[in-house]
Amino acid sequence: MPNVLAAVMPGAGRPIQTRELPEPSLEADSGLLDVHLSEVCGTDVHLRDGRLAGVPYPIIPGHVSAGILSKIRGTLLDIHGQPLREGDRITFLDVHGTCNACWHCLVAKASTRCPHRKVYGITFGLADGLTGGWATQLYLKPGTRCIRLADLAFETYMAAGCSLPTALHAIDRAGVRLGDTVLVLGSGPVGLSAVVFAKMAGALNVLCIGNPASRLDAARQAGADAALDFMSCDDAARIEWVRSHTQGRGADITIEATGAPAAVVQAMRFTRDAGRVVVVGQYTDHGEIPFNPHLDLNRKHLDIRGCWGSDFSHFYRGVEILKDPHRARPWAEMRMQRFGLHQTNEALAAVESRQVVKALIDPKMG
Amino acid sequence: MPNVLAAVMPGAGRPIQTRELPEPSLEADSGLLDVHLSEVCGTDVHLRDGRLAGVPYPIIPGHVSAGILSKIRGTLLDIHGQPLREGDRITFLDVHGTCNACWHCLVAKASTRCPHRKVYGITFGLADGLTGGWATQLYLKPGTRCIRLADLAFETYMAAGCSLPTALHAIDRAGVRLGDTVLVLGSGPVGLSAVVFAKMAGALNVLCIGNPASRLDAARQAGADAALDFMSCDDAARIEWVRSHTQGRGADITIEATGAPAAVVQAMRFTRDAGRVVVVGQYTDHGEIPFNPHLDLNRKHLDIRGCWGSDFSHFYRGVEILKDPHRARPWAEMRMQRFGLHQTNEALAAVESRQVVKALIDPKMG
Amino acid sequence: MPNVLAAVMPGAGRPIQTRELPEPSLEADSGLLDVHLSEVCGTDVHLRDGRLAGVPYPIIPGHVSAGILSKIRGTLLDIHGQPLREGDRITFLDVHGTCNACWHCLVAKASTRCPHRKVYGITFGLADGLTGGWATQLYLKPGTRCIRLADLAFETYMAAGCSLPTALHAIDRAGVRLGDTVLVLGSGPVGLSAVVFAKMAGALNVLCIGNPASRLDAARQAGADAALDFMSCDDAARIEWVRSHTQGRGADITIEATGAPAAVVQAMRFTRDAGRVVVVGQYTDHGEIPFNPHLDLNRKHLDIRGCWGSDFSHFYRGVEILKDPHRARPWAEMRMQRFGLHQTNEALAAVESRQVVKALIDPKMG
Amino acid sequence: MPNVLAAVMPGAGRPIQTRELPEPSLEADSGLLDVHLSEVCGTDVHLRDGRLAGVPYPIIPGHVSAGILSKIRGTLLDIHGQPLREGDRITFLDVHGTCNACWHCLVAKASTRCPHRKVYGITFGLADGLTGGWATQLYLKPGTRCIRLADLAFETYMAAGCSLPTALHAIDRAGVRLGDTVLVLGSGPVGLSAVVFAKMAGALNVLCIGNPASRLDAARQAGADAALDFMSCDDAARIEWVRSHTQGRGADITIEATGAPAAVVQAMRFTRDAGRVVVVGQYTDHGEIPFNPHLDLNRKHLDIRGCWGSDFSHFYRGVEILKDPHRARPWAEMRMQRFGLHQTNEALAAVESRQVVKALIDPKMG
Repeated sequence: MPNVLAAVMPGAGRPIQTRELPEPSLEADSGLLDVHLSEVCGTDVHLRDGRLAGVPYPIIPGHVSAGILSKIRGTLLDIHGQPLREGDRITFLDVHGTCNACWHCLVAKASTRCPHRKVYGITFGLADGLTGGWATQLYLKPGTRCIRLADLAFETYMAAGCSLPTALHAIDRAGVRLGDTVLVLGSGPVGLSAVVFAKMAGALNVLCIGNPASRLDAARQAGADAALDFMSCDDAARIEWVRSHTQGRGADITIEATGAPAAVVQAMRFTRDAGRVVVVGQYTDHGEIPFNPHLDLNRKHLDIRGCWGSDFSHFYRGVEILKDPHRARPWAEMRMQRFGLHQTNEALAAVESRQVVKALIDPKMG
Repeated sequence: MPNVLAAVMPGAGRPIQTRELPEPSLEADSGLLDVHLSEVCGTDVHLRDGRLAGVPYPIIPGHVSAGILSKIRGTLLDIHGQPLREGDRITFLDVHGTCNACWHCLVAKASTRCPHRKVYGITFGLADGLTGGWATQLYLKPGTRCIRLADLAFETYMAAGCSLPTALHAIDRAGVRLGDTVLVLGSGPVGLSAVVFAKMAGALNVLCIGNPASRLDAARQAGADAALDFMSCDDAARIEWVRSHTQGRGADITIEATGAPAAVVQAMRFTRDAGRVVVVGQYTDHGEIPFNPHLDLNRKHLDIRGCWGSDFSHFYRGVEILKDPHRARPWAEMRMQRFGLHQTNEALAAVESRQVVKALIDPKMG
Repeated sequence: MPNVLAAVMPGAGRPIQTRELPEPSLEADSGLLDVHLSEVCGTDVHLRDGRLAGVPYPIIPGHVSAGILSKIRGTLLDIHGQPLREGDRITFLDVHGTCNACWHCLVAKASTRCPHRKVYGITFGLADGLTGGWATQLYLKPGTRCIRLADLAFETYMAAGCSLPTALHAIDRAGVRLGDTVLVLGSGPVGLSAVVFAKMAGALNVLCIGNPASRLDAARQAGADAALDFMSCDDAARIEWVRSHTQGRGADITIEATGAPAAVVQAMRFTRDAGRVVVVGQYTDHGEIPFNPHLDLNRKHLDIRGCWGSDFSHFYRGVEILKDPHRARPWAEMRMQRFGLHQTNEALAAVESRQVVKALIDPKMG
Repeated sequence: MPNVLAAVMPGAGRPIQTRELPEPSLEADSGLLDVHLSEVCGTDVHLRDGRLAGVPYPIIPGHVSAGILSKIRGTLLDIHGQPLREGDRITFLDVHGTCNACWHCLVAKASTRCPHRKVYGITFGLADGLTGGWATQLYLKPGTRCIRLADLAFETYMAAGCSLPTALHAIDRAGVRLGDTVLVLGSGPVGLSAVVFAKMAGALNVLCIGNPASRLDAARQAGADAALDFMSCDDAARIEWVRSHTQGRGADITIEATGAPAAVVQAMRFTRDAGRVVVVGQYTDHGEIPFNPHLDLNRKHLDIRGCWGSDFSHFYRGVEILKDPHRARPWAEMRMQRFGLHQTNEALAAVESRQVVKALIDPKMG
């Protein structure tokens, strides 16, 4: 039986090692994915640094991946009830095991808060099998939700990657109306996808505040009508900039996608009275930040909406959108950098320093 | 022409004086209200202390009042197009002059943020005429929106007072579903009305955290299934109390009606994942408070909704509800204390110290 | 092994027979319910008459039932993850097998349209086992969603029965605001539960048009402020009656719960401009009815919302509400008639003729 | 004083005559518009044929117009509070006098159902002054809501014309989500604008069923992914066509913009389970049509939303969108035909026969 090469993160604060692992035997209704590309995202940096709770180290990182179905045992169905076949080009939802049996799933209908939910590459670990995409092969457990990519290029799909369902969920929560002004805070992958989606949802005016310059260029290319370098000015100047682009009122909708606690409070201040703020960037705990409930929230009659994770609907709709070449163009044009399985530590460093807009692991590079 | 007796607040930090003023001559389509009762609310304490911006001192306080139409010049219509008549028992919307011509009114449909909006007893001053209810007569400017009280007792209406539209707006924003658990923070007039409305909207379980004991008794009488004295325990014990009443999850909906910035952050922590927080108590600036955007908002997938002011719809629907004796019972049973026009400083002191659940000015007492 | 007595409906248009059947052996994670009460509803009349498609005759009718867990093999968990035990007083969701894997479940989030959905007593038949409540024992298949009744009386629960989740779903769709006028068309079980829920959701004025007089009395007892006998007048008089109770405007919300196609069009005409109509009564095909799209729909700016089936959330919340004795009172006071397993044909006749408000099968009567 | 040339519709069924009328003297805060272009829409055909109730003949048709402010007496403000000036290029909302004082305006917040609402060119007649756009000058009554066109070409604005706010309102009601399939029934001006807006709102797949071929070409140019000639096939083939473009499910959203009652029922049948139908085409009474409430509505769990008129928000947002040349492109490319004031009868005939996609009156042509 051929062996699998995988990048293993042994524990918090420790460098990734490449290991050779045996190819697994398959349970009924499971499969094996020949990984072509897997993503390196900010969460992977947090994983390396031990900033997430409940991670069962050692793990194989890589929660969003795409490739070719190399083996199937039993039956894997898509959501139209059609069986998948070996040789199909697919991706799959990284979230697994949402139980559809608990209070959160059934009564609150908030499946992203289901306590049984696991995520490939994050809360599945090596003990659960080949459950991350930074490997030549990935094990598709029974119940994994796969989607055929058809003609969609792996590169284009991966340019969107995990930011695709996350940003789509944020835009759903934002409730964009035709003609709105949408301000996106952050120019990382989620911010850039939010820029694309905000424009696609009919925003007339999409603003972006981010950093560094290379990513602001990407934001403009993704459709932002104006972009401001966060590092170029202070809070007062930022508010002034937003007002100058919104007839003095502030944005109708602000989407926070930065990770910095201060950005959440700035989002409130950048938004017009009776507007909306979607908070999608606070995936790890970076501490507290002060705000003024009277000035920043109540008197403004704001709506502030937290946005945690995503579910299959966001993922599925996102891929359907990418299958339209015209809609996919902003992602197809994003500049990415590929790293091999032996360069994963370098890939994490590149993401951390924001040298790249997006980094991908290409197991075929070796 | 007979004179009018009015309680005049001369400026921030100065005691109220009783003055004799001439009865005004009426413009076309205006009227004069023989005031029977006017409210003393927390806002009046803030007015005395100069905590609100844009107040044109000297003013006659008293934004919500009820009485008998003593004079009409021209025509005053109700919203059904029926003319009001002298002798009618009425109240009126304290908000005046919402312009229906600006961006906030016409495009954002957020009339509570209209810059032309004025409020009787707060942003109308003595220079605008007899524009507060702490007087024997009040001038109803053209365009004032009056509502007939029919058989509704002045006392019952005033027990609800300005908390009626405010709390109803908050409940609309809360989106209560049948069977929800609603937690109300605060047991002042808005908090108590929110307790009544939450129960009326189908909440199965209404919790209240407030102070002092007399108001918690009022909360229980108003329908709260359980009430906790805020002063009796620390933050950890409060969270424990909420969890013990919500199967460990937190409230589906929390309505903050306290005025204390810290309560806004506690509201987030008391609410279940994917729940809602309505912030209706932050009417004046009491400074900043720290919160954790990751733990308190994003990871919880919370909705937080500021709720500023109210419009005619809340006011009208609130009065219609009060006209149903069964629905009005919790307000009809509230204990209130009356003060004459010469006792307005004492009334403010009683409200400030929370000795009373509600204080009213009765100009007939002298 | 003891035998089970069951009422079996052999096919469309044929009388029910009582049969003795062997007690089944249990699969892993399944159970057996000692049935105390099971419902007879209008759907059962339709089943007898062959009006529903896809029914796998012979079947054991009885989709909503309550009783005591007599046997468990393996583990049955409630939605809080707590294991159920033999001796527990329970009910269970009649809908089984919603797949959580298809487009309707995962993307449209419309699980009531899942093609894999089966219903005990309707689309499960004798070939699937003891899958209806008109029997001394019922087989709880793996994956059946059970709810503990705790202290809730079987009679009170069954008075609500299948109308409980159906009417709750309809009220959720209706979006009742505090102070609304809600008109319910129909005074069968769903109509009566809709009356109770509309009042519970804060409607100020609940109207009911139904038939016969005994059910209108039940509607008034359930909380209707006014009730009209449908047979007492013609269309014009009905519209006049609705207007006379709604200040000439029509109802804010109309809930159609009759089964007669004409009622859907009348619902549009009884509703005010910019109001809402919920259609929940059209569970079988009774043919076409003409309406005027200009006058009845577009010019009125109406919202019309179909409401099909219900999901676990409606069922669970409904039972939680019934556990509150004050909230459950209208159901606890409903008059019902019990029939034994040998009287099921008589029970169907009584339901069909509307002689009873509600009929129940009590297998203990023999 | 110079005279005004106007096309006057004397009464139902009678040809339009051109009359010379005196230039009016201006009230305080009113103005005069030098009309450059005015629209001919389907409503004008209905006006000629006497199909609308409450029309105060004789009237000057032309409800949507654009031109240059030739005279102002007093002050006309835009919604930002900025005074308009003579020489400004403007348009104005045809709806006038929404009262902001009645139950519909204030409580239901359904201003399009305000009984005081008047419309230039339709319910304002000659007795009200120069109140239609088919004239060299139009009188802007006090309270008319004007919008500056800035650099927006009159032709582009008029290509959208009254379909702009109508279709935008319909899209707001439709609640398009990113990735949806939207089916538009009708390829007249409202249908074409709905196609543009549906695409702009993020629909992935926009289908159009209309007629004749020239308008289907316009629909494709406006962004429709597929278009079907209504006259080319029967109902069964149309349903088959829709299914073949929607993975067998039907459209997520169908927007009816035809005027034919049968299209409303077809809209229900073309839409997927749990989808939405917006009915915006039924502006005049063309009689009844049968539908099946079980099959077409309840079992499908459909939402059907009537959509009457539009308000200032739709109009304002629509013009803002047109000011973006990229967004305006589909309208800028529409083929229109101009008619002079002496050719209005011919213009109506051209619209009635659908020979033109859009007809405009150009008073400068004489």
